[in-house]
Amino acid sequence: MTGGQQARGGRPQQAGGSGMDQVRVARAALSRLFEPLDPVGTLLVEAFGPAEALRIAAGRAPAEEVGALASSLQGAAGADHGDASGPRAAAARPGALASALERWAPRVPHLAPERDLEAMARLGGRLVIPEDAEWPAGLLGLGAEGPLCLWVRGDESLPAAERSVAIVGSRDATGYGISVAGELARGMADLGLTVVSGGAYGVDGQAHRAALTSCTPAVPTVAVMAGGVDRYYPSGNEELLREVARRGHLVSELPPGASPSKHRFLKRNRLIAALSALTVVVEARWRSGALSTARRAADLGRLVAAVPGSVYSANSAGCHRLLRDGAACVTDAKEAYELVAPSGEGLTEDPEGQVRAHDGLSLVDLMVLEALPVRRGAGVESLAVVAGLSEAEVRAALGRLCLVGLCERSEGGWRRSRKG
Amino acid sequence: MTGGQQARGGRPQQAGGSGMDQVRVARAALSRLFEPLDPVGTLLVEAFGPAEALRIAAGRAPAEEVGALASSLQGAAGADHGDASGPRAAAARPGALASALERWAPRVPHLAPERDLEAMARLGGRLVIPEDAEWPAGLLGLGAEGPLCLWVRGDESLPAAERSVAIVGSRDATGYGISVAGELARGMADLGLTVVSGGAYGVDGQAHRAALTSCTPAVPTVAVMAGGVDRYYPSGNEELLREVARRGHLVSELPPGASPSKHRFLKRNRLIAALSALTVVVEARWRSGALSTARRAADLGRLVAAVPGSVYSANSAGCHRLLRDGAACVTDAKEAYELVAPSGEGLTEDPEGQVRAHDGLSLVDLMVLEALPVRRGAGVESLAVVAGLSEAEVRAALGRLCLVGLCERSEGGWRRSRKG
Repeated sequence: MTGGQQARGGRPQQAGGSGMDQVRVARAALSRLFEPLDPVGTLLVEAFGPAEALRIAAGRAPAEEVGALASSLQGAAGADHGDASGPRAAAARPGALASALERWAPRVPHLAPERDLEAMARLGGRLVIPEDAEWPAGLLGLGAEGPLCLWVRGDESLPAAERSVAIVGSRDATGYGISVAGELARGMADLGLTVVSGGAYGVDGQAHRAALTSCTPAVPTVAVMAGGVDRYYPSGNEELLREVARRGHLVSELPPGASPSKHRFLKRNRLIAALSALTVVVEARWRSGALSTARRAADLGRLVAAVPGSVYSANSAGCHRLLRDGAACVTDAKEAYELVAPSGEGLTEDPEGQVRAHDGLSLVDLMVLEALPVRRGAGVESLAVVAGLSEAEVRAALGRLCLVGLCERSEGGWRRSRKG
Repeated sequence: MTGGQQARGGRPQQAGGSGMDQVRVARAALSRLFEPLDPVGTLLVEAFGPAEALRIAAGRAPAEEVGALASSLQGAAGADHGDASGPRAAAARPGALASALERWAPRVPHLAPERDLEAMARLGGRLVIPEDAEWPAGLLGLGAEGPLCLWVRGDESLPAAERSVAIVGSRDATGYGISVAGELARGMADLGLTVVSGGAYGVDGQAHRAALTSCTPAVPTVAVMAGGVDRYYPSGNEELLREVARRGHLVSELPPGASPSKHRFLKRNRLIAALSALTVVVEARWRSGALSTARRAADLGRLVAAVPGSVYSANSAGCHRLLRDGAACVTDAKEAYELVAPSGEGLTEDPEGQVRAHDGLSLVDLMVLEALPVRRGAGVESLAVVAGLSEAEVRAALGRLCLVGLCERSEGGWRRSRKG
């Protein structure tokens, strides 16, 4: 276990691979060590990078270093703007670091990330990490809530969020929902867009299935799983998910073998939203997981749309709730496409659509764009100070600017993209 | 024919009635003389008042006076801000006045407004004019496009727009549309609101019918007709319209006996919108008269809502179009009520609803409120100069301010309401 050996060596070694391999192995190991969005884990990786975070998790950092760490976590938590319930605050709670290290240290030697990487390779998959060129820019909008890595099955490169549309909805969809989901997904794929969904029964499954009938995009569909990509969940969709892996992508931030659980589903929804320029909810009850995906999409500054239905259908009540809250009303693929189509690519001559394309950048986006340096990247915190915005606003704007190719990640932070 | 005799006498006489009666008779006569929104007629009434406008229409004004009139109409047309297609521009076209006078003069002696007033009295009706306290403030938002008068059947006072909701839609409604229209209308009436509609088959008729089953409001429903209120159109709704006249109101800007025609239907729609705080479209095809009512409501700064339906129903395509254009999504009476309920009257605890109620006045409304004098009224033109807004903006804002009781019409124009 290279990660463990490195940790035991006190300092990460170049032996057994390049620095890049070492980072990849460390991220693989960490993705098995703690849950997505674990407060302490997230902060450690953010502050020290994955390899050093793994060494610390292994308990190989000297006691005085751990003390300094705890105060630096408390300092970082200050950036939460006094939100005592934020993840940084949770990480900074006295004892949080010590308790995490106590849980993690005995497990680190048994993580076996290289075994996971080999298992993925046997499935025709690979690990994609933020350091890779393939890392979808859409995920950058998640900031510190971005995944450590993505376990990916499927040959092609991960599609860009600006060419992807999430189609989500009820597991117990009605015939109406199934029908609309299929037509929307097939239409979006025929127009060259990748259909992202969650692999579940009902709307999700039908969206994947219909997208697979299209020959247009290289990656017709992506299923973002709440467990490992070798687990076919739900089992009734096994054949469908195998086909998605073969012709599209199965994706998860959890390592092979991980089982899906309720909180993993909820966390998974942020990835569906972040991987897509638009989230369309086809059917959803008043309280539905699909609404959480829509909410995440809105938080990221992405477009949210809902399909209307009968006012007597409980399965449309969530959609109507979204429409009341400002989601776009979408009744067919053409309308959905026009929401995400780049300037001039509209299918009908809608003068308003043109205005929308030209006015694409909001005031906040423009303020962040102005604040972005051209050469060396700047961190979110510094951008927030320069632009006079909150860090959350800056993060959301960075995601949108990346989507339209105006900004990119570089050493030390974010900068204007060369084409921007 | 008093109106004609007065005109023949050269100067209107007080004989046979007070000045108020004279204005009422003049408005009755003019409503038969020219079509609603007639450009020259509208400008004459605006510039000279109804009694003098009738004298001019009778051709009793000396030639030099008519010449001065034509230039003054041209001057008024300047207020159209160079919109060469506006009604004022049409009235100012060379020869427009002369041609109108040529058509009107021979007809004035035969108008017989008192016969119309007597006919209305026999039907249990009356003529309501802008000079009456009963004149609905909601109509004031129409400015120069307001009706000359309203021929009204029904005992009670005309209800205030802020307690009225228009429910409109397809004539060839589906079972779904009929069902939703009925539930919405009954629900609104049970909550104390008057249901305004157009008396047509389908959604309109069902809305009237359902509202009549409620005992709550003094005026459960108002049907705004495109012809005279003694004409039951469509004939299949005769029984329903008789009941509306008995328990609610039948209303028209056209005199008794006038037959409905296509352009009268379109003009009628502005009255439905202006008499209501909210217009709800239940079902509408892509091109539908109900959408014109919704558009007029939006122009007046009133709320517009649409009921969602199946994306496969052509009868819901117009509703989805409205939703895309920013109409509120309404699925039941409670939701519609919350859109119009005064602050604190919401039925559910919706924090956003509270914000909406407190922030009720838009910036434009506040600017017009600031510009309104406390004592002597000011005209739209002067208010536009003071507030730095267009006349159209000022008119729309005045309508909204009247609706919430912050402004009122007084001699010479508009002023702050005493309660405001």
